[in-house]
Amino acid sequence: MSQDTRGRIVDAAIQLFNERGVAAVTTNHVAGHLKISPGNLYYHFRNKEEIVREAFDRMNAEADEVWRLESTETSADTAKPPAVDPMALQRMLVGNLKLYARYLFFARELPSLLRSDPVLHQRYAAVSAKRVDQLESVMRPLVSAGLIHSVGDNEDLRTLVESAWMVGLFCIPYAETLDPTPAATSAKARAKRTHAAIERGALLVLHMFKPYMDALAYTALVVIVRTELEKLTLA
Amino acid sequence: MSQDTRGRIVDAAIQLFNERGVAAVTTNHVAGHLKISPGNLYYHFRNKEEIVREAFDRMNAEADEVWRLESTETSADTAKPPAVDPMALQRMLVGNLKLYARYLFFARELPSLLRSDPVLHQRYAAVSAKRVDQLESVMRPLVSAGLIHSVGDNEDLRTLVESAWMVGLFCIPYAETLDPTPAATSAKARAKRTHAAIERGALLVLHMFKPYMDALAYTALVVIVRTELEKLTLA
Repeated sequence: MSQDTRGRIVDAAIQLFNERGVAAVTTNHVAGHLKISPGNLYYHFRNKEEIVREAFDRMNAEADEVWRLESTETSADTAKPPAVDPMALQRMLVGNLKLYARYLFFARELPSLLRSDPVLHQRYAAVSAKRVDQLESVMRPLVSAGLIHSVGDNEDLRTLVESAWMVGLFCIPYAETLDPTPAATSAKARAKRTHAAIERGALLVLHMFKPYMDALAYTALVVIVRTELEKLTLA
Repeated sequence: MSQDTRGRIVDAAIQLFNERGVAAVTTNHVAGHLKISPGNLYYHFRNKEEIVREAFDRMNAEADEVWRLESTETSADTAKPPAVDPMALQRMLVGNLKLYARYLFFARELPSLLRSDPVLHQRYAAVSAKRVDQLESVMRPLVSAGLIHSVGDNEDLRTLVESAWMVGLFCIPYAETLDPTPAATSAKARAKRTHAAIERGALLVLHMFKPYMDALAYTALVVIVRTELEKLTLA
């Protein structure tokens, strides 16, 4: 029950953060939303920062699932060459964009959240570096197998992967800079905007790999990603 | 003299915003820094928001210089085909990154500044769309002349240009997400970090054009941009 309350607090906080932005939400708002006493909330979390960190840890645990490599699942033998997994790029891209949509406040407010909480910043920086490494690990066997070609040397691959990560990471705040519609519109209008931002972001990321792929493989990848994202329903 | 005070207020505010972040700086801090009375400051600006807008307008006027196309300078005849200007990409990239360094608070805090000021958001969205159009206008004759090749159709060019704009725009906040060193270090340490973020951002942007350029032209472009950025001194 106590564990359950803790989870419900994080659920409610994520919902309110997504709707109103982190700065506008207090622990009292979260308690009020759940119809629990502020004292009950403080039994679980000392302050808003701790709730944000818990939400990040949860997002990160979900991301670990998305980023789990097929090769490490099916083989305990680390000496084996990594598996060629042509769908990995699609899985990671769509999986990560879905997480950005669910933890929208995080995608929107990342830099300011990190600036205001050094503990979160440490955790995030470590995770971010790991994700770029993982993305590189997934791409490398595709390069070796010739499915991604003409990339150049290791440094080129790293640069490509880092740019792709960055475009995915900032696609939602970027779309918001272009759209001066007041944020205080309906939940439906907000969901539609987020969806459009994610679809555009996915296309921008995929397009970075286009010069390194056969035309047919690229087209297939775009279709698959579009289809996956159409299934995405936003709260 | 009054006009001069107005300019000095904006200068001081930019400096303090860059050092401490916009949220931590009040109009009283700005007045105190200039050793003028708060009343004198309020004669020129009603609030901090107005100073931020003025700083944006100033940055934008400087950006207009950077983004001025050679072709529109030398020819009043709009029916003429746009000039092929192989250095335009370099000039716009370096020029814009220099502006991000000078107006660092803007580069770092863009999404939250726009969220908190709908007037600024309107202005920024219009400017941002214009810049992507300008970048496209500069690239199109390079594509026609074959200096940028195999891009695909107009939609491909637009996608490439938009991704490049976005990577440049977010290279400083991105670098900060990776570096959890406390921001309250020395001015010298901060300048060094900004410099590294800009150099990395420039490389990421250039690398997006690599598949579409001859190897020699790409190498030359990287060397030129690196040399230009080395000359950059940060306050």
